[in-house]
Amino acid sequence: MTGTQGTNLDQWYGHYAARTAGLAASEVRALFAVASRPEVVSLAGGMPYVSALPQQLIETAVERTVSEQGAVALQYGSGQGVPRLREQILEVMALEGIHGSVDDVVVTTGSQHALELLSKLFLDPGDVVIAEGPSYVTAITVFRSFQAETVHSPMDADGLEPQALRETIARVKAEGKRIKFLYLIPSFQNPMGVTLTWERRVEILEIARSEGILVLEDNPYGLLYFDQAPPPAIRSLDEDGVVYLGTFSKTLAPGLRVGWAIAPHAIREKLVLANEAAILSPSSFSQIVISEYMETADWRGQIDTFRGVYRERRDAMLAALQEHLPSMSWTVPNGGFYVWLTMPEHLDSKAMLPRAVKELVAYTPGTAFYADGNGRRNMRLSFCYPKPDFIREGIRRLATVINGELALLGEFSQTAPLPIVPAERDVLPPFAG
Amino acid sequence: MTGTQGTNLDQWYGHYAARTAGLAASEVRALFAVASRPEVVSLAGGMPYVSALPQQLIETAVERTVSEQGAVALQYGSGQGVPRLREQILEVMALEGIHGSVDDVVVTTGSQHALELLSKLFLDPGDVVIAEGPSYVTAITVFRSFQAETVHSPMDADGLEPQALRETIARVKAEGKRIKFLYLIPSFQNPMGVTLTWERRVEILEIARSEGILVLEDNPYGLLYFDQAPPPAIRSLDEDGVVYLGTFSKTLAPGLRVGWAIAPHAIREKLVLANEAAILSPSSFSQIVISEYMETADWRGQIDTFRGVYRERRDAMLAALQEHLPSMSWTVPNGGFYVWLTMPEHLDSKAMLPRAVKELVAYTPGTAFYADGNGRRNMRLSFCYPKPDFIREGIRRLATVINGELALLGEFSQTAPLPIVPAERDVLPPFAG
Repeated sequence: MTGTQGTNLDQWYGHYAARTAGLAASEVRALFAVASRPEVVSLAGGMPYVSALPQQLIETAVERTVSEQGAVALQYGSGQGVPRLREQILEVMALEGIHGSVDDVVVTTGSQHALELLSKLFLDPGDVVIAEGPSYVTAITVFRSFQAETVHSPMDADGLEPQALRETIARVKAEGKRIKFLYLIPSFQNPMGVTLTWERRVEILEIARSEGILVLEDNPYGLLYFDQAPPPAIRSLDEDGVVYLGTFSKTLAPGLRVGWAIAPHAIREKLVLANEAAILSPSSFSQIVISEYMETADWRGQIDTFRGVYRERRDAMLAALQEHLPSMSWTVPNGGFYVWLTMPEHLDSKAMLPRAVKELVAYTPGTAFYADGNGRRNMRLSFCYPKPDFIREGIRRLATVINGELALLGEFSQTAPLPIVPAERDVLPPFAG
Repeated sequence: MTGTQGTNLDQWYGHYAARTAGLAASEVRALFAVASRPEVVSLAGGMPYVSALPQQLIETAVERTVSEQGAVALQYGSGQGVPRLREQILEVMALEGIHGSVDDVVVTTGSQHALELLSKLFLDPGDVVIAEGPSYVTAITVFRSFQAETVHSPMDADGLEPQALRETIARVKAEGKRIKFLYLIPSFQNPMGVTLTWERRVEILEIARSEGILVLEDNPYGLLYFDQAPPPAIRSLDEDGVVYLGTFSKTLAPGLRVGWAIAPHAIREKLVLANEAAILSPSSFSQIVISEYMETADWRGQIDTFRGVYRERRDAMLAALQEHLPSMSWTVPNGGFYVWLTMPEHLDSKAMLPRAVKELVAYTPGTAFYADGNGRRNMRLSFCYPKPDFIREGIRRLATVINGELALLGEFSQTAPLPIVPAERDVLPPFAG
């Protein structure tokens, strides 16, 4: 509000929709700027290591796209997506235990846009989405952007806890609130890295069915397992009560922005209309590049390559944590991108972040993954992007910071009790006005 | 509701958001299916003639994208867009008289997504958008999808009429409604093809300013002029009261899905956050392909090529209308894609469409471009996609249909007065439930 040229004053301040009041920059956003400095080891972002994708594979796909399908690739397309690609998506889905029809698939601009469109279709102000606690930061952002409340339900090393979920649902319903989705990342969860067991998938689906709650199953990491495949997708158990979200962002490349939803018939038709209103049609060019890639490259073998890359990095991170931070606790992911670290009481990962960046290491504070201010003792450590040596060095630096904090805490605790800071909404203030 | 396998029954029917009740398929959607049959001359769609783009130009751009910027092109990017492309967009903007900063530009998934995101930021249920009458069908759809009402204000051959706009604003305000946008396509308007004069641009901007209404200036066709350039963009007159929407869909190719908004500072920051929530970041791949195209190709010369293609088709359409339908009236566009035809009283372009398709010609009924049921005597005729011979044949077939209708009307009018059908909301019924 101090801009000398009025640029910080917003003459349209009183004109925004009510939903815009909840629009705020996430911590992850601010961190991307920090993480981009080359001297910082960033364990913060969730960028896949696209350099593990041989350039020749993409070259072949784009050359074929232009030379053989140029007129289609450059043109508007169907709001539901390119039919041939939707067939190929079913081949990917079969690996997750899902067998559907090409009619069930809606191609979206990354699975993020499926989340946005489904939120637009279903969420009224005041509605509740039940999500794992912690959960994916930009899902929480999307739900909030439609004035819905995210209520977290607890997890353990086997994922969402069914009995706790029953209690969460009962509590929300007792408050007279309407639950629209149960939003889950069952395999190699973001940010915890844990996987929902098969028994729990069955039980949680049964809970959702009996409570009349639509399940959003978000599965970006399921094929990136390190030892054995995770259990089949929840969607493999139920065609009518689950909307499944998939993406090429982690098994191929996020820069193409192609994901998909598999949805029950009536929802799918509305999703296509919402997609058309929002963007007319998803990029024909990106879709055909991916279709040509799947046609010409050993895409299953490439996923194996990614698995090997990420397994090595996961191993490096776990070994470094064991070496440098043996008194902390952390999750042991069998796939995906993330480890979830829990620090001792009274440490605050958000408050500590500036000191970490000074030590040239970055992470995402746990509070970013909760809508309710929880997660102060936690941080998400991503092993997807930095090479193993950098991961080891990053964890070493992180240990320096945490051990320094603990030493300081020890000194203070001999003189006075630590102040307890009340949890606050863990976002930066909204921009402008 | 008669599906034997329950696919038409929607168990989630009671779960949708209030805004989803207004979601319906547009007539344009149904027409795309019709138009895709090769024996039909389609004057219905708005597909650019991408075959006029030499394949070599795109080949060079995609090869450079993969070989020189592959790791960036395949990765997530900034929610605001690739900085180099935003600089190049300013070169395009200079041709429209707009001189801004690279910070003002937000890259979107086609300009359609800018419309969607701005609607999400600004429109509460019951808000009003004032638009030209007729206006772009999918803009009306987007406004409706956020439960806003589109109120049309009349046009003539020089575009929106300022005095009528004053009256429209006064009427809406007197009804106690809140006007959020004045949505305009000032150059080679969709669907009328007319262009707002410079004097009116100045006057209409002054009206919007004095009434405190934000102008959305949508300009997909401005560079596709046939004789002389249209007047400078309204945005060239005002940086704070206008959001400008641009796109590469008509000057390059829609299949890449890259457009942009130029917005006042505070709105721009919110737009970036909304873009990130919706899709994380626009496609790096598509953006860099366009950036490389602008770097390596004579893109201004290519726009000249498109101008020549569309000028020839416009000429073919106008000559054919003069030859086959001399008693009708139509607009004479100096650029863009569309002619707006007005038929005699009592003819109904929507009711006539099945007969036109039987004669193997398609158009878009005028009612698609109004939120209020107007436009029955009108149709939009697109000259962008079919080659001149097909345009001539299409108009010949259309004349057969219209003249047949007129003959029928003449017979009936000798026996009984024509029934007057009340205007109805001109959309197909919502899907499922």
